[in-house]
Amino acid sequence: MDRAGLMTLLNRVKAGELAPSEAAGAIAASAGGPLGSDLNVDGHRAIRVGIPEVVFGEGKTAGQCARMAAELDRLGHSVLVTRLSADKADAVSAAVPAGRYDATSRTFARRRGDDPHPLRGPVAVICAGTSDVPVAEEAAITLETIGQPVERVYDVGVAGLHRLLSRLDVIRRAGVCIVAAGMEGALPSVVGGLVDVPVVAVPTPVGYGTGAGGYAALLAMLNSCSPNVSVVNIGNGFGAAFVAALANRVGPPRAP
Amino acid sequence: MDRAGLMTLLNRVKAGELAPSEAAGAIAASAGGPLGSDLNVDGHRAIRVGIPEVVFGEGKTAGQCARMAAELDRLGHSVLVTRLSADKADAVSAAVPAGRYDATSRTFARRRGDDPHPLRGPVAVICAGTSDVPVAEEAAITLETIGQPVERVYDVGVAGLHRLLSRLDVIRRAGVCIVAAGMEGALPSVVGGLVDVPVVAVPTPVGYGTGAGGYAALLAMLNSCSPNVSVVNIGNGFGAAFVAALANRVGPPRAP
Amino acid sequence: MDRAGLMTLLNRVKAGELAPSEAAGAIAASAGGPLGSDLNVDGHRAIRVGIPEVVFGEGKTAGQCARMAAELDRLGHSVLVTRLSADKADAVSAAVPAGRYDATSRTFARRRGDDPHPLRGPVAVICAGTSDVPVAEEAAITLETIGQPVERVYDVGVAGLHRLLSRLDVIRRAGVCIVAAGMEGALPSVVGGLVDVPVVAVPTPVGYGTGAGGYAALLAMLNSCSPNVSVVNIGNGFGAAFVAALANRVGPPRAP
Amino acid sequence: MDRAGLMTLLNRVKAGELAPSEAAGAIAASAGGPLGSDLNVDGHRAIRVGIPEVVFGEGKTAGQCARMAAELDRLGHSVLVTRLSADKADAVSAAVPAGRYDATSRTFARRRGDDPHPLRGPVAVICAGTSDVPVAEEAAITLETIGQPVERVYDVGVAGLHRLLSRLDVIRRAGVCIVAAGMEGALPSVVGGLVDVPVVAVPTPVGYGTGAGGYAALLAMLNSCSPNVSVVNIGNGFGAAFVAALANRVGPPRAP
Amino acid sequence: MDRAGLMTLLNRVKAGELAPSEAAGAIAASAGGPLGSDLNVDGHRAIRVGIPEVVFGEGKTAGQCARMAAELDRLGHSVLVTRLSADKADAVSAAVPAGRYDATSRTFARRRGDDPHPLRGPVAVICAGTSDVPVAEEAAITLETIGQPVERVYDVGVAGLHRLLSRLDVIRRAGVCIVAAGMEGALPSVVGGLVDVPVVAVPTPVGYGTGAGGYAALLAMLNSCSPNVSVVNIGNGFGAAFVAALANRVGPPRAP
Amino acid sequence: MDRAGLMTLLNRVKAGELAPSEAAGAIAASAGGPLGSDLNVDGHRAIRVGIPEVVFGEGKTAGQCARMAAELDRLGHSVLVTRLSADKADAVSAAVPAGRYDATSRTFARRRGDDPHPLRGPVAVICAGTSDVPVAEEAAITLETIGQPVERVYDVGVAGLHRLLSRLDVIRRAGVCIVAAGMEGALPSVVGGLVDVPVVAVPTPVGYGTGAGGYAALLAMLNSCSPNVSVVNIGNGFGAAFVAALANRVGPPRAP
Amino acid sequence: MDRAGLMTLLNRVKAGELAPSEAAGAIAASAGGPLGSDLNVDGHRAIRVGIPEVVFGEGKTAGQCARMAAELDRLGHSVLVTRLSADKADAVSAAVPAGRYDATSRTFARRRGDDPHPLRGPVAVICAGTSDVPVAEEAAITLETIGQPVERVYDVGVAGLHRLLSRLDVIRRAGVCIVAAGMEGALPSVVGGLVDVPVVAVPTPVGYGTGAGGYAALLAMLNSCSPNVSVVNIGNGFGAAFVAALANRVGPPRAP
Amino acid sequence: MDRAGLMTLLNRVKAGELAPSEAAGAIAASAGGPLGSDLNVDGHRAIRVGIPEVVFGEGKTAGQCARMAAELDRLGHSVLVTRLSADKADAVSAAVPAGRYDATSRTFARRRGDDPHPLRGPVAVICAGTSDVPVAEEAAITLETIGQPVERVYDVGVAGLHRLLSRLDVIRRAGVCIVAAGMEGALPSVVGGLVDVPVVAVPTPVGYGTGAGGYAALLAMLNSCSPNVSVVNIGNGFGAAFVAALANRVGPPRAP
Repeated sequence: MDRAGLMTLLNRVKAGELAPSEAAGAIAASAGGPLGSDLNVDGHRAIRVGIPEVVFGEGKTAGQCARMAAELDRLGHSVLVTRLSADKADAVSAAVPAGRYDATSRTFARRRGDDPHPLRGPVAVICAGTSDVPVAEEAAITLETIGQPVERVYDVGVAGLHRLLSRLDVIRRAGVCIVAAGMEGALPSVVGGLVDVPVVAVPTPVGYGTGAGGYAALLAMLNSCSPNVSVVNIGNGFGAAFVAALANRVGPPRAP
Repeated sequence: MDRAGLMTLLNRVKAGELAPSEAAGAIAASAGGPLGSDLNVDGHRAIRVGIPEVVFGEGKTAGQCARMAAELDRLGHSVLVTRLSADKADAVSAAVPAGRYDATSRTFARRRGDDPHPLRGPVAVICAGTSDVPVAEEAAITLETIGQPVERVYDVGVAGLHRLLSRLDVIRRAGVCIVAAGMEGALPSVVGGLVDVPVVAVPTPVGYGTGAGGYAALLAMLNSCSPNVSVVNIGNGFGAAFVAALANRVGPPRAP
Repeated sequence: MDRAGLMTLLNRVKAGELAPSEAAGAIAASAGGPLGSDLNVDGHRAIRVGIPEVVFGEGKTAGQCARMAAELDRLGHSVLVTRLSADKADAVSAAVPAGRYDATSRTFARRRGDDPHPLRGPVAVICAGTSDVPVAEEAAITLETIGQPVERVYDVGVAGLHRLLSRLDVIRRAGVCIVAAGMEGALPSVVGGLVDVPVVAVPTPVGYGTGAGGYAALLAMLNSCSPNVSVVNIGNGFGAAFVAALANRVGPPRAP
Repeated sequence: MDRAGLMTLLNRVKAGELAPSEAAGAIAASAGGPLGSDLNVDGHRAIRVGIPEVVFGEGKTAGQCARMAAELDRLGHSVLVTRLSADKADAVSAAVPAGRYDATSRTFARRRGDDPHPLRGPVAVICAGTSDVPVAEEAAITLETIGQPVERVYDVGVAGLHRLLSRLDVIRRAGVCIVAAGMEGALPSVVGGLVDVPVVAVPTPVGYGTGAGGYAALLAMLNSCSPNVSVVNIGNGFGAAFVAALANRVGPPRAP
Repeated sequence: MDRAGLMTLLNRVKAGELAPSEAAGAIAASAGGPLGSDLNVDGHRAIRVGIPEVVFGEGKTAGQCARMAAELDRLGHSVLVTRLSADKADAVSAAVPAGRYDATSRTFARRRGDDPHPLRGPVAVICAGTSDVPVAEEAAITLETIGQPVERVYDVGVAGLHRLLSRLDVIRRAGVCIVAAGMEGALPSVVGGLVDVPVVAVPTPVGYGTGAGGYAALLAMLNSCSPNVSVVNIGNGFGAAFVAALANRVGPPRAP
Repeated sequence: MDRAGLMTLLNRVKAGELAPSEAAGAIAASAGGPLGSDLNVDGHRAIRVGIPEVVFGEGKTAGQCARMAAELDRLGHSVLVTRLSADKADAVSAAVPAGRYDATSRTFARRRGDDPHPLRGPVAVICAGTSDVPVAEEAAITLETIGQPVERVYDVGVAGLHRLLSRLDVIRRAGVCIVAAGMEGALPSVVGGLVDVPVVAVPTPVGYGTGAGGYAALLAMLNSCSPNVSVVNIGNGFGAAFVAALANRVGPPRAP
Repeated sequence: MDRAGLMTLLNRVKAGELAPSEAAGAIAASAGGPLGSDLNVDGHRAIRVGIPEVVFGEGKTAGQCARMAAELDRLGHSVLVTRLSADKADAVSAAVPAGRYDATSRTFARRRGDDPHPLRGPVAVICAGTSDVPVAEEAAITLETIGQPVERVYDVGVAGLHRLLSRLDVIRRAGVCIVAAGMEGALPSVVGGLVDVPVVAVPTPVGYGTGAGGYAALLAMLNSCSPNVSVVNIGNGFGAAFVAALANRVGPPRAP
Repeated sequence: MDRAGLMTLLNRVKAGELAPSEAAGAIAASAGGPLGSDLNVDGHRAIRVGIPEVVFGEGKTAGQCARMAAELDRLGHSVLVTRLSADKADAVSAAVPAGRYDATSRTFARRRGDDPHPLRGPVAVICAGTSDVPVAEEAAITLETIGQPVERVYDVGVAGLHRLLSRLDVIRRAGVCIVAAGMEGALPSVVGGLVDVPVVAVPTPVGYGTGAGGYAALLAMLNSCSPNVSVVNIGNGFGAAFVAALANRVGPPRAP
């Protein structure tokens, strides 16, 4: 249950269409809770922070991922499992057959329709090079699972500015921009100087020598001379998408 | 000239109220440009990125700050000078008599009316302790200069959760939250778990030993378990406000 | 032999029940010593620092671990081997058949009864997320091997404060709290603001990007705004338990 | 009001000696609260975490320190201001005439009697060299202000073990040990191998070259081979004392 | 004496215009050597590495700087003193009256004519912002003292690409480019993508928070996706100029 | 197509030997472009920055490397793939049969004749020890693929200066020097003191303990007391060669 | 040939027992030189720095190691190959059948008699724990190969001072002490306070969390409060032995 | 009293020239001890570690320095105070009138005759540049105070190898070499390749940008390819001298 669903329910109570006890039962049934001693599903997170709980696959067993995914699916939420290595994907697919695993971004997703909130526009997901695509795709698939439209603008690093400038129309249409880059991490600054919307920068662990791990890119982004840039953790495409999705919403959810 | 002003101008041209050549002259006159060999005023930044140029006072002389502030003022923009040490404030005040210097945040500001964009709501500027106030105030005054309403929620660090929870109504009304914290930087995670809007975290250089300089807080914020948190550079209250202001806008500017 | 055992022995000498030479022999026999050129068993550590020697399994061969475990067992101590990878577990199990290997925490333990000291209460072992459980379990099993009661409070991270607050009664009953957390490491600060007992914080190497390795959590904990928090090394569940066990004792050991 | 005071009050209500409304008034009057927009006094912290609020002087003006100290004094608490530079001391002294400023540790303290809790023993405050004394004294004065007995064992670094061993009787009598050291930070490991009580290690920013700032000592302490050592932030004598004081208490407070 | 001078001398010996002993005397007289026990002037450095010795002013007294400058002047070299704080400038000026102190770059220079080598073109000295000018000027003045033509292109950071692109003609005429930038250090990558000559990047210590000290810019430059970029130490305008001057030479020196 | 080829074409147009439309077609045909959604070939990079695009093999699949190599080959460029692990080499060899894989440097190269630019001389590629050879060879093969002559001077580290000095004649003949070194990275400083040409230093990740990863060498090189040294990223033999090749050119390309 | 051998040779020339041309031939034959393009044997290193060349096995192929070992053996030197992984050992053993591989320290050694220099005494090789033994053994075997007597004092870490003090007689007999320790690296400071000879400290990469890699131990040793401690790189048992061997010599070599 | 003095005393007891009780009194009188609560003089350190206690002036008041210096002087030791800022020098001079303050190295010294041990030779104190002289002088004066002969070889950095090679005779005569260098710290490696005695490397905090603080030099020295190099803390000229003095001694002290 998300906030729109909750409001629908309460409006039906107010309209006398639903008994308060039935509504209470429905709300309680949607709350999630412990799945054994080792897992806790938070079914009301969509009500509290606007987007349902997402399963972080790293450090969980295939079985744990599958049980959480199945429970979120059962509660009627979109299902998203991030950082899911390929060897755990089958178990999750079996638990949520309607979902799909993407090996590039290591995500498993089952989408449940469009974001009910009115939006500023599509989210532009921009990346500097081919090696940044996995992080960019984690962001793009997260956004699509939330139900927001995405424009992918890939392989437009600053060593050849003409590539970026040739896509400027797409970028300027976006409600929010996500920019993923490794190495020197300069792309968010350049994008930031060209748009009047929030830019969420996500450093990628792409590079070697002093650039390995993504720290050079992270520092560059934190020190961007374009003040419309904020930053998430290295490789955190999911977080970038989450922030962007919230910033892209311009009003309360429409009742379904 | 900002985008709203530009659109007004062009609409008047379209309506035959203004000759194209006059419009062109007005646009050119608003473009700014070099102020001597050492300074460049970018009068069209408001058109390009939505907010007028802001003067970063650190590393500039009092005279340079004053000349830039005067030029921005002359062009009709709100004037904001950040990181302006007290000894340079008089020169800027003399150049822009309508402005005001705030010693806590080291900002000089002259505001020119409300943000013409429709907004989600006020921006909550939240900070953990008394020592974080200078950074929080840099954010708050930046927002006020842009023309957005601000709610200050100060001294509500996680060591005493009751302080934060008692202000929850104000926080949940906000269109965007800015959270400034030093030391262990835990406050953005806690706030992030309570709201469904973007949270812009700004680490402050408050602490000693391993916390001096703000790195502990920065790392904590980048690793927040609340995915609606993005981060700006240590002490960058201005940047936090800039990002928040853009995220808080929900539509194109109203014509003035 | 621990301190209680030593005092019993000496009281029997005083009472004339045991010849001094027999007592001396018993003490010497319990002292441990070299097991070949490469291992040294310190049988009197329980007398000196209150808890018997524990075998750190990392960097030792299966055979070395087994020989040390067997010797400690033979001397009548509880046996604890930490950081024991699964491939070495069989050798140790064969040497100490009464013990048990736990794969999650990578510990092998044989417990020998309750801690003879009077205690403040149970030790609460709290962790932020599922991925922190291995470190938390190393602490919990260490405490149980020492013979102290443990309350596990798992998966209560700060992104959903309601989870922590719903377990507050258990936490407030504890004599000492251990808090394991990775990522931004904020949980010890929040717990520290809610209890009046020592909080031992243990950062876990859980996270990615800037959080990988546990440094972000470590820094957060060292900079906690809750002054009842002290910190052990990243991943050091054993050390956290050792410190907590000593702090939880409120008097000299009862004679057995 | 601390927990003992609260219990006395409630027992008087139970005994019919005090009207509930009067008790409620007294509790409310002791709660503290905002002192203007910039300061918040938490009068019930002693009830919640066992020790009254302490004023951290760094980053606060002399006036802010004085107002907070005066309010805590008015509420009947012991007063402790740490990190108070000498130039702010007069203002605080004027506000709390019964207190005393110590220039070595930069603390201002007014003590209000003994700790009402039964204790394990004195706290040994041990330091390696003369330059570590300011941090050690911050710990010692904090403990004395809380009302616990302190044994100072100063200038006993590991380069001359005979100095430490000659004070072993004092150290072994302690209920808890605090060990402050800079440079290579080896002293806590050595002390930890000699006692069966918790050792709280506090690195000091004493050293030069790679030791400047205290990081070498911090790392050494986190990696201590003595498992009864936990660590606080560099220079955090106050925190070490706070942790030690809680660990030293072995029962609920005696009614006054 | 530089290589051109040496060749002239030797050609005159060959032509019988100069006696070998006279030539030997002249060479020996130009060799420099110790100036007291604390200073060594290397008069033949111009022969060995192509550019005369330069005095690094930091860590030398005013007197030491003046003595070295005077000796280099006496030997007929151009004189350059870098990192010369203003309070030492008078002493050097008195020793080399024909020279001039520049307070922005903290350099003292006396130039002795054009570089005798044929050059590719002018050296473009490009910087991102006003605060980078001191480092850029150190490079520019070094080049001018060596006798090479300089094109200054200042305040063209990536947040406003139009500023850089409007100077592209000047940049593309250069034989070598020097690019100084602080903060995120993105400018060298962008310039590198636009030119077919070596780009020498010099990070500046301009920024705050994570950018303070210039490390973010340094890392960005080392990880530039433009492979024609090499890097010198933070703030090392002098070194950048030295490298650029050698790369700009396209043949052996013309005899004077 | 490179700049020489472009000029030939345009001269033929001018001479009436080629119709403008044919020339336009040839230019367009050489521009490269997207190879599917995941790859972009920049066929005009040789025109823009003087050297054709090079394929960075790390983070690309064998198929992606092969497709890019084949396209560059088809466009008539020299082909260079760097950081190509042995398991991907067959695919690239199949796509460009005229090329050759070098396992030491992990490069695949097909050379297309000499550099059309006049050069200062050969490039000396110098390395300190046997373990530095892979990085040195990446540089040497890159230079050879560009078409410049290379002198290899290997295993001449500073622990035995006689080895370096015995090769001084070769080193002094070079137009540019590349120096690869790990461990303490001292060799570039020593070489820099002996030559009057640019020295491009490339740290190698050779060493252990504090030297692992190449950071010690990188720092040494950035702090070289020889001012003719500039630095590229750790292990970046390709970048060193690229910078050196540009610096080694002393005029515009000769028409082929 | 070492210095003693060289002197013998020259004395024989002086005595007329050997023709100068024969001596010259012998000297030249002992000089070593290139073994193919990739290896250089420095046969005169023993003359120059007192100890023959040692082969660092890391980063060399089995064949390269074997060829260098065979050549050094052929020249009559002791043979030592360090950091030789087990899979390369057979090749080296085949090349130098009289040598022996030690898997713990990963060294291959063939010793050629006692050090010809008079010595202060044995070298004490001390280590803190079992995991430090591989590094300690690298030192011990290096010393034995040089021909110096070694006293091993293992597993005497500071958590149990009695273990160290019980071996004090052996330690005080030593001419030089080598102390290897990981974790907090405190042992060299304690040893340094007990002896009047040089102490060479070698940090080991033993530990976890913040101690992993040996940096905590390195910093502790660099900041030792015992001034007779100097330090070598993490894990550099070979270097520690080399330094110790030179310091242990008290006179020129005795003629053989 | 040092070891030679102690042996003289004991020999006189053995010879019947001194009553045991008188000897005991003399020994006790020389032991030093507490000077008030804040200072401890260790009069027997010369017996234990071979060199008398030295006063580290940093972090002590002028009065503390003076009292310790006076006591060491009274006990008949050489007096050395290091890191003594100029403003404290007068107090120490007044307390030990026979001593002398050196402002360059910030040392105060009173020497008491030659080292009674036989020595290998003079100690060469070598430094790379003028800015390294203060650290080099701390080493040189420490050695002179211990009573060992010193050869100063200053300003011989690797950018001009001829300077070093011209002093090679002096360097090769030395019993031990100390090499102080900042910036890239290459000099110890070069010296190490030329001598057969221990080389003690001391990094200096000389440099800027990445070299500031001396870390680049420290890392270079730890990674030296010359294995006869060991390292002390940044700026620790005193420690380098202490290590060198012990290594330079080749036998027990001669009776005075």
